[in-house]
Amino acid sequence: MKKYDIIIVGGGPAGVSCGISAKNTYPDKKIALVRKETTPMIPCGIPYVFSTLKEVNDNILPDAPLAANKIEIITEEVVGRTDHKLLLADNSELEFEKLVLAVGSKAVMPPIEGADKEGVFLVRKDKDYLEEMKSKINKIQKVVILGGGYIGIEVADELLKGGKDVTVIEMMNTLLPTMDEEFGEKIKSIIEENGGKTITGKSVKRILGNKTVTGVELNDGVIINCDLVIVSCGYKPNLELAKNFGLVFEEGKGILVDDYLRTSDKDIFAIGDCAAKYDFFTGESSNIMLASTAMAEGRLVGTNLYSIKVIRKYQGVLGSFATKIGKTSFAVSGITEKRAKAHGLEYVVGVAKAIDRHPGKLPGASEVTIKLLFSTYSHHLLGAQIMGGDSVGELINMMSVMILNKMTDMDIDTLQIGTHPLLTASPVVYPVITATVDAIKKWYK
Amino acid sequence: MKKYDIIIVGGGPAGVSCGISAKNTYPDKKIALVRKETTPMIPCGIPYVFSTLKEVNDNILPDAPLAANKIEIITEEVVGRTDHKLLLADNSELEFEKLVLAVGSKAVMPPIEGADKEGVFLVRKDKDYLEEMKSKINKIQKVVILGGGYIGIEVADELLKGGKDVTVIEMMNTLLPTMDEEFGEKIKSIIEENGGKTITGKSVKRILGNKTVTGVELNDGVIINCDLVIVSCGYKPNLELAKNFGLVFEEGKGILVDDYLRTSDKDIFAIGDCAAKYDFFTGESSNIMLASTAMAEGRLVGTNLYSIKVIRKYQGVLGSFATKIGKTSFAVSGITEKRAKAHGLEYVVGVAKAIDRHPGKLPGASEVTIKLLFSTYSHHLLGAQIMGGDSVGELINMMSVMILNKMTDMDIDTLQIGTHPLLTASPVVYPVITATVDAIKKWYK
Repeated sequence: MKKYDIIIVGGGPAGVSCGISAKNTYPDKKIALVRKETTPMIPCGIPYVFSTLKEVNDNILPDAPLAANKIEIITEEVVGRTDHKLLLADNSELEFEKLVLAVGSKAVMPPIEGADKEGVFLVRKDKDYLEEMKSKINKIQKVVILGGGYIGIEVADELLKGGKDVTVIEMMNTLLPTMDEEFGEKIKSIIEENGGKTITGKSVKRILGNKTVTGVELNDGVIINCDLVIVSCGYKPNLELAKNFGLVFEEGKGILVDDYLRTSDKDIFAIGDCAAKYDFFTGESSNIMLASTAMAEGRLVGTNLYSIKVIRKYQGVLGSFATKIGKTSFAVSGITEKRAKAHGLEYVVGVAKAIDRHPGKLPGASEVTIKLLFSTYSHHLLGAQIMGGDSVGELINMMSVMILNKMTDMDIDTLQIGTHPLLTASPVVYPVITATVDAIKKWYK
Repeated sequence: MKKYDIIIVGGGPAGVSCGISAKNTYPDKKIALVRKETTPMIPCGIPYVFSTLKEVNDNILPDAPLAANKIEIITEEVVGRTDHKLLLADNSELEFEKLVLAVGSKAVMPPIEGADKEGVFLVRKDKDYLEEMKSKINKIQKVVILGGGYIGIEVADELLKGGKDVTVIEMMNTLLPTMDEEFGEKIKSIIEENGGKTITGKSVKRILGNKTVTGVELNDGVIINCDLVIVSCGYKPNLELAKNFGLVFEEGKGILVDDYLRTSDKDIFAIGDCAAKYDFFTGESSNIMLASTAMAEGRLVGTNLYSIKVIRKYQGVLGSFATKIGKTSFAVSGITEKRAKAHGLEYVVGVAKAIDRHPGKLPGASEVTIKLLFSTYSHHLLGAQIMGGDSVGELINMMSVMILNKMTDMDIDTLQIGTHPLLTASPVVYPVITATVDAIKKWYK
């Protein structure tokens, strides 16, 4: 039987970052990463295999960082455990001192009549499945996407780039419901300008066709014909191993862990999509599944496997993410107005628009819109939503750093921000500042 | 005699931001902004009038924000003061309660023999001067630029884009001496790849020619022929008014101010390039002149004119700036290795390189390099230097927010960073994190 000090189960971003972090902290420990997949996918790159990337193969999560850190890769399924031993599908056993479960999540198929027809696909993180899906898409024209969350709209955008006839159907009243309405409305208009159709506030009653999909029927009876249906209605944590291992978990939420991601077994940790999470502000259960969160957890656990070396400063999930639809980028971090209302948080909103070059005649200029929420009483920044050019991708990370540091309106107002004509908005209208000033003015009134 | 509550002297970014901030805080106060220029320039946009922008007129600092805030613009020179009255060049007087000096800085002409010849230009913030300079440049081919700081290299880059024969001469051993050598070397290679010449570690003994420039002679006797010389050897604070008004100032440093930018006269404030500054880390005098600093001061003073409403949290100048040479962006915030050595600060360096898209085959990908300095004992982030694609412009602002919040290596290691295939590096190699981990590994050794 092979013996390892540390075994990580799962080859996604959480597992990889945990392995690297463990090797950096404990260079003498023997580490193995056990995964089912020969070639794991970059999860957030998956929508781009349908048009921007030539082939699914272009989206493989590279093994080089694991090799460089002397982490052994074992490609096999874990099927059981007794004490400090893992049982693999090929009947071999692996011994461990510390075990990390990073087994991720799987796409959810909602209980819709006809979901089992040929031509109905989920957005799964599986190379062979994605290759089959891509080859089917290449042969047809009309696609219906169920779900207007970020994966749904990213796939829609890609299929439009590939010249397909695309309809996105979202149950909520706007697309990308994790952001406020005005951003969802903008996404709707971009998809429609690019030739797509969007239907919001309606659900799908059944998927039509005999053996193969021919359309979908909405709850109001309207029928939309199509050759293929892509279902993007969320993901749920993979809990089979936790169940099998006798760990405490909660269905739909994940494996229960403490602040240091320790499970009910002291030598077993759980990180990433399979681990239960709590919201940064409200402390309530959070179903956010993002590589950024998973990786932060992976690094924390990798460092703290044998003793707490890194003190965790934050309690929960911030939910920082960015996307790009057409030529416009969208990003959010922290609390939206929608969520503030739902949770009874009192807030003041500041908004600003600016051109992200100065003067605006310089090349590459786009308009950027920022919406900030501050806590009415403590004046802390609660959340940020941005749309604009490519710089939005790092702007939102600056906002996350501000939120994590509990910065207030006044802290932001006196910030020293670097600006440059070819790279950012003018310092006079730098939108993070002007949105903050907009909020301050509401307090002064 | 006209009476105002608040008068701001100077129409640059500091003055404008102060005016807007004052109006936001004290909406009932009557505010005037007095400036010499009919059409002030966007200071950091000036290098781009030589090629990227069609004309100098495209770089005018807009008056719209002043108009929108009902700030009266008075175009006249201030020539004197008695108590709470300003005397203007047209002999009229203006009464004020609170006065803000935002009179900026002027380009320095070093004492070089021949500096008075025709065809020798400074980079002045004056529209007519810049128009004359641009029209001269359009008629000639060979340009020597004295000074390889950020304005020198930005002008060099612009003139190369315009097809000129350009030589940059810098006294220090590398270009852009405000960053560490490796970044200066990269800038040198970009300028040379684009057909420019660079000479470092040498100074200019004299400017040659009869009435008009024909070349420059270096301190080692080498002669470089040229049709035009642009001198970009720094700026010094405008102190004439401070002298005239009897305020305390220090030659070369600026008008002396306290933490709230109050001068030796309790009703007079000084902000921006004309006010003395201190370094964020070392507390020593700083000669950094950046719009970002000026604006932060402007906002602080505008809010605090009648009472301290915003408590200042930082003491000094961070020196956060970005630039773009060729297709590569460069940025710095806080302490460089060079400065740490000069000031005896003990530090640990972390470096990382990554592609700013994931997978790297996605469009728009560039390599980004990050160098971080952490304090050896306190583990605080001391400084960041970055080169890469356009996202560097906002990445450096995230780093500034981290430095201002006194984040440590461990705080950064557990950060929740949002990433997206089309906008940022992969979470697995996100360079801010990996550079931090690189530093952490050096501690663990």
